[in-house]
Amino acid sequence: MGEFSFIQWIRKRQRRRRDVTVGIGDDCAVLNVSSDKLCLITTDMMVDGTHFDLRKCTVRDVGRKAIASNISDVAAMGCRATAAVVSVCFPENTSEKFAKELYNGIWDVANKYTIEVIGGDTISGRSPLCISITLLGKDGGLKPIRRSGAKVNDMILVTGTLGGSILGKHIHFEPRLKEGILLNKHFTIHAMIDISDGLTADLNHILEESHVGAILYEDTIPVSKAAEEIAKKTGNTPLYHALSDGEDYELLIIVSKGQAKKVMESNLFPERTFRCIGKIVSGRGIRMKYAQGHIKRIKPRGYEHLQSEFNDSGEL
Amino acid sequence: MGEFSFIQWIRKRQRRRRDVTVGIGDDCAVLNVSSDKLCLITTDMMVDGTHFDLRKCTVRDVGRKAIASNISDVAAMGCRATAAVVSVCFPENTSEKFAKELYNGIWDVANKYTIEVIGGDTISGRSPLCISITLLGKDGGLKPIRRSGAKVNDMILVTGTLGGSILGKHIHFEPRLKEGILLNKHFTIHAMIDISDGLTADLNHILEESHVGAILYEDTIPVSKAAEEIAKKTGNTPLYHALSDGEDYELLIIVSKGQAKKVMESNLFPERTFRCIGKIVSGRGIRMKYAQGHIKRIKPRGYEHLQSEFNDSGEL
Repeated sequence: MGEFSFIQWIRKRQRRRRDVTVGIGDDCAVLNVSSDKLCLITTDMMVDGTHFDLRKCTVRDVGRKAIASNISDVAAMGCRATAAVVSVCFPENTSEKFAKELYNGIWDVANKYTIEVIGGDTISGRSPLCISITLLGKDGGLKPIRRSGAKVNDMILVTGTLGGSILGKHIHFEPRLKEGILLNKHFTIHAMIDISDGLTADLNHILEESHVGAILYEDTIPVSKAAEEIAKKTGNTPLYHALSDGEDYELLIIVSKGQAKKVMESNLFPERTFRCIGKIVSGRGIRMKYAQGHIKRIKPRGYEHLQSEFNDSGEL
Repeated sequence: MGEFSFIQWIRKRQRRRRDVTVGIGDDCAVLNVSSDKLCLITTDMMVDGTHFDLRKCTVRDVGRKAIASNISDVAAMGCRATAAVVSVCFPENTSEKFAKELYNGIWDVANKYTIEVIGGDTISGRSPLCISITLLGKDGGLKPIRRSGAKVNDMILVTGTLGGSILGKHIHFEPRLKEGILLNKHFTIHAMIDISDGLTADLNHILEESHVGAILYEDTIPVSKAAEEIAKKTGNTPLYHALSDGEDYELLIIVSKGQAKKVMESNLFPERTFRCIGKIVSGRGIRMKYAQGHIKRIKPRGYEHLQSEFNDSGEL
């Protein structure tokens, strides 16, 4: 299959957007932004052996995860996702079927949100499969929610349950795009982030950017079944996994006490999506109030970035 | 060096843009597009051993090439470049110095054009160095120049000289951003592309998108000194290299006869930047009129994309 027919294949497969002026196949793609104020952009790169393992998942799963993790970043700003460019480095002698399955995985998720693949680059190398997706978004009349707006006495909410995502959720999660937009549209959200590094690690990003501290209540942390399951294998507690495992892609939300109550009671979220797990305090760092009543400082733990050896992962 | 200090290092190093609302360090970057009509987007991925060879060039060179090749794509639309996101997969145990040199290379080029790095992702894997840059651009009141507007009797112009870029120009080229914008602003350009795959291969992209053919004049093709030099080694003619070598990153411009004359004589380009190398004809494919007078059909040749084995490179 030549480049031209591969582009034709892509053009025909996907749902098109009306604001895409030039899609795949020219020097640049062009998006009509005349009715937008802001253009959001986020990117994620994933490589076989680090972010996924092709011995344990399909290439279609990889496509799903690669686009969904980007959508989760747009969700964390409370904005809309629009279009993506997809770059892939395939191992040498990759089959056409394998390549197409990657795109099928991307569309499994992208079509649901009417995200169009408007460009990309396909290369091959003496390299494991490496995929880099850049996703664009727009404000849709809303203000993007930053990490830096947390205030003392704010409440800390979280969606879903946490921990043990490695047992499956890290591939098969649903990005909280709908929730992010609803929160931004109907409430005043002070800060928000998606939990990709781990609850305490991502909470710590908010705390550092906002120059505040936090206290968490042990008995409110929504520990997942997967966290309980994996705890049996690792010897750590389920709570440990809920606090430090990455890639749950849930939302961590910082709101005033009044707004927190409104969010939790809102008919917009009939499924009891949110749990209040703590509050923002002055000072720095994270403390945990245990069920027994004592309070202890805990270290943000999770997927650690750009360590001294520069041998880990860090999203900029 | 932790992630936070690496982000700080990046924040301090680069020239900032006023339209960047949120730069590096949040879930998404945010660009103010309220005064733009169109947002351009292009992406290039490069891997060690295929697009560059770290045994023969520095990692700083790699950074330069990675951003410059993207700028060349925006140049080929005749528009302005604004901001970039940079994703890198470093081989395991990469040093901090090596990583920083890559960014220094990017800024060597980006700062010249006031392009700000507003986000990215840094990972590591059991993989050769792989870099993926996505560049955004804006219309600046101009209409992006597509590949599809070539008309019968139009002239074919090209900037610079061609061939043998592998001897150095493929790393150390200057993207023709200034020329692209000037052409778009002051003339009516029917179609434009940058020569990354090779003259005949890229011309063929225009011909296919525009449903026309072309005739080239042998004695007008601007054969570079590098093409002559490399021809001595390969046994091919210098002309062969000028026609088929990739990565010269010159512009190939399709204009009416009247506009061609104006471009060639314009004071905007005092350096005699352009050569007229042929014209657009009806039918399909490329023919060459040789200096001796005979005309022969030639096959578009160059860096071939997405071959049957899916083992080559293809920009979508």
